Amino acid sequence: MPVLVMKFGGTSVANPDRIRRAAKRVGIEVAKGYDVIVIVSAMSGKTNELVGWVEETAPMFDAREYDAVVSSGENVTAGLMALTLQQMNVPARSWQGWQVPVRTTSAHSAARIEEIPTDNIRAKFAEGMQVAVIAGFQGISPEGRITTLGRGGSDTTAVAFAAAFGAERCDIFTDVDGVYTTDPRITDKARKLDKIAFEEMLELASLGAKVLQTRSVELAMRYKVKLRVLSSFEEPSDTAGTLVCDEEDIMESNIVAGVAYSRDEAKMTLLSVADRPGIAAAIFTALSDTGVNVDMIVQNISEDGRTDMTFSCPTNQVARADKALAAAKEAGGLNFTELVVDRDVAKVSVVGIGMRSHTGVAAKMFKILSNEGINIKVITTSEIKISVLIERKYMELAVQALHDAFELDKAS
Amino acid sequence: MPVLVMKFGGTSVANPDRIRRAAKRVGIEVAKGYDVIVIVSAMSGKTNELVGWVEETAPMFDAREYDAVVSSGENVTAGLMALTLQQMNVPARSWQGWQVPVRTTSAHSAARIEEIPTDNIRAKFAEGMQVAVIAGFQGISPEGRITTLGRGGSDTTAVAFAAAFGAERCDIFTDVDGVYTTDPRITDKARKLDKIAFEEMLELASLGAKVLQTRSVELAMRYKVKLRVLSSFEEPSDTAGTLVCDEEDIMESNIVAGVAYSRDEAKMTLLSVADRPGIAAAIFTALSDTGVNVDMIVQNISEDGRTDMTFSCPTNQVARADKALAAAKEAGGLNFTELVVDRDVAKVSVVGIGMRSHTGVAAKMFKILSNEGINIKVITTSEIKISVLIERKYMELAVQALHDAFELDKAS
Repeated sequence: MPVLVMKFGGTSVANPDRIRRAAKRVGIEVAKGYDVIVIVSAMSGKTNELVGWVEETAPMFDAREYDAVVSSGENVTAGLMALTLQQMNVPARSWQGWQVPVRTTSAHSAARIEEIPTDNIRAKFAEGMQVAVIAGFQGISPEGRITTLGRGGSDTTAVAFAAAFGAERCDIFTDVDGVYTTDPRITDKARKLDKIAFEEMLELASLGAKVLQTRSVELAMRYKVKLRVLSSFEEPSDTAGTLVCDEEDIMESNIVAGVAYSRDEAKMTLLSVADRPGIAAAIFTALSDTGVNVDMIVQNISEDGRTDMTFSCPTNQVARADKALAAAKEAGGLNFTELVVDRDVAKVSVVGIGMRSHTGVAAKMFKILSNEGINIKVITTSEIKISVLIERKYMELAVQALHDAFELDKAS
Repeated sequence: MPVLVMKFGGTSVANPDRIRRAAKRVGIEVAKGYDVIVIVSAMSGKTNELVGWVEETAPMFDAREYDAVVSSGENVTAGLMALTLQQMNVPARSWQGWQVPVRTTSAHSAARIEEIPTDNIRAKFAEGMQVAVIAGFQGISPEGRITTLGRGGSDTTAVAFAAAFGAERCDIFTDVDGVYTTDPRITDKARKLDKIAFEEMLELASLGAKVLQTRSVELAMRYKVKLRVLSSFEEPSDTAGTLVCDEEDIMESNIVAGVAYSRDEAKMTLLSVADRPGIAAAIFTALSDTGVNVDMIVQNISEDGRTDMTFSCPTNQVARADKALAAAKEAGGLNFTELVVDRDVAKVSVVGIGMRSHTGVAAKMFKILSNEGINIKVITTSEIKISVLIERKYMELAVQALHDAFELDKAS
């Protein structure tokens, strides 16, 4: 029988009533003839409660004990989901991570899945069980301790099971009904995409679209798992949600798939840095060592052996970056006259695999912004993405203008 | 190093603050040079929350899934306790039932512990770990599923670990400060016992003294585990609580150790039953098949081949007993003219190992009750216990009079 993986997030299993609603969706797929693997998150709020207790107990906690405590939320939902399915006369049982076992690395709280043996669950399917309910987000280390995969890790669990079982599709049920061309709160012309390519989803996820965890998209891309994002609060239908899939499975697509933004950006410029080999390494090693997430990096043209180095990072990391750079200057090996900080910027990006084959997308983007009188402060590009830093007050305007000009409200 | 087992009940670990207080008690014993095994219950209220969800989900639940859900409460406390101890610089780690592994039977929700391997934990003690924190109440079945030991099962976990590790003592921390000669709510002359024999504790537990789970006392008696019951809210001291121990460890004791009572008793009498072999079996099989907990049984003298059969059971099981006996009569094989029910009785018992060597205890008990004008309806005796059924309104009076007359307010 073909296997389907269905993952339900915290809001979709927030209480016994919602679990019943989710179980009904599972029942529909079972009736179609699928063997279903259900991955569940903790009931919404429960993980925060558990994390709160751990942090109250020990500010610098042992990650092995953190994992043992925090993983219990998913165990509760898994048991309740199995019971709910049984109540609907669907043969089901629950598995905790160690029972499968979901083998992971020992990197507690940020473990990576290494292996998912399928024999045990396949044998149960062969015996007539129709649904295997798996506690998401967790596994077991080589030392036999409980591990967790980090926040949002249940998406990764779902994709990993879909890959291991060769599932026909992996449905991720969440509280939004799919991936949009942009944030509907910014423009009501935002349109739900029926399909999006893995690469596009990856760029959008890394740009702050919170629909899917980046790691789960990477994993799906590597193992060619068809991912569908859909809302558990919508009526079931074949066209529901957004399918995240291989580029080749998308017949036609707009050149630009979506417009993304990030509000909390800061631009920092080191003035008059010596322009010599190793200087960039010195700067960005100092920053990464203190945990600053540097995003865009631009180096100006050199003059008299000196240059300016500009980078962006989240606003709340400015103080940390400032301190790290001052310390590096103090220690020698890094010289600059001044650090100029602009906390008043936002990042706007257009993303689309169509850019690979179409030229002129960047030029068009800059023209649209210029027409609105928006000055561009920093530009970076990748093969399928163009990002700009602009003054924060123009952010909404920029998103709306780009969405209009690239006609994202119209399907291709 | 000598091993000590310390068990903390739900109210003793109700929140991170209480867990800290409990951890301090553990720290005191570690400082004395003990390797400590800590058994924890779920934070108070948590097990009820989990059971509530299961029952809301499935009124006739799969006990395997029930166990998987309900056991998560203890896992949370175990991790938090280990973190708290680490925070106090006491090397500690948590074990869930399956990690030890605590091997049990497959009788889900009422499993019995069959084996506790000690190698793994002993090795950690040898490496310098000072406290092993164990999630109580749970184990793993031969099939690899999570089991629970039934309500109050954490006491049993504690005693089983004490037996397996040959612990010097097993301290049960709860919200009462020990075992009393009788319920202090009935008479303020009730006195805390310093020591009580296993057999006495067993009788008192089965009579409704809620301090220790009966199974844990049985287990302690079998493996000669010294059990101490004490309050986690009292200042630590060597004379705190009550030691439940072997008879031989009690130098001197009162003939009567305590007076117990049970308020919700009903007395049922089947009139004119045929007095022939097999009739008692027919009656009590019918009752036990429908889950009626029969306590006392008395058969009157036979006359003309007929007799009256009297028994007691909890008041809330009268309707069930009535129905079961009517059905048995209907089906033939059991004949009686009438079933007389007296819902207005209570049971009062005196318990003490001294009765073995002292005669006249029963006579003295009956005299005391008679002096107070209390009529005795049913009497049963065991080697170390005498129980009577009396009219419920005299219950408090009977307990007070017996407590006075046997001088239980005075230590031996």
